[in-house]
Amino acid sequence: MDPLLELFGLIAGAITSMGFVPQLIRGHRTKKLDDVSYYMPMILAVGMTLWFIYGVLIDSLAIMIANTFGVCCCLVLIAMKKAYT
Amino acid sequence: MDPLLELFGLIAGAITSMGFVPQLIRGHRTKKLDDVSYYMPMILAVGMTLWFIYGVLIDSLAIMIANTFGVCCCLVLIAMKKAYT
Repeated sequence: MDPLLELFGLIAGAITSMGFVPQLIRGHRTKKLDDVSYYMPMILAVGMTLWFIYGVLIDSLAIMIANTFGVCCCLVLIAMKKAYT
Repeated sequence: MDPLLELFGLIAGAITSMGFVPQLIRGHRTKKLDDVSYYMPMILAVGMTLWFIYGVLIDSLAIMIANTFGVCCCLVLIAMKKAYT
């Protein structure tokens, strides 16, 4: 894949991956995640795993990296909600 | 792009897009989104817009559709949080 295109995908992936970080920080700070639905991170983790496979199939490193980080964030969010409930 | 591959991407996209729906339903039901960080949907909306452009560049309909729906969900979540605060 075109390196410039791959870089663009990496930036997009970095930003979407970072999206979960403020939620994790907020949850860690307030120790409350009651208003966060369990299903959101669960469904997203499944979907992002499929996106990871899609990234492998179309040979896009950006999609692979972004979704690996995304799945990790979702799993941490689930664990945090479990711990704080 | 290979139609079978595109179908796989569409399924992945449908699942990740659906991930936000339970959060919207929960927010609508409880009228509380205090524990949800504003930054999460904001950053995700920016990132998903870049993913949409990436989808256009690599000619992936799956990425375009999934991220259009994702951006919409994020904007609705921001509006709901604004309304319930």
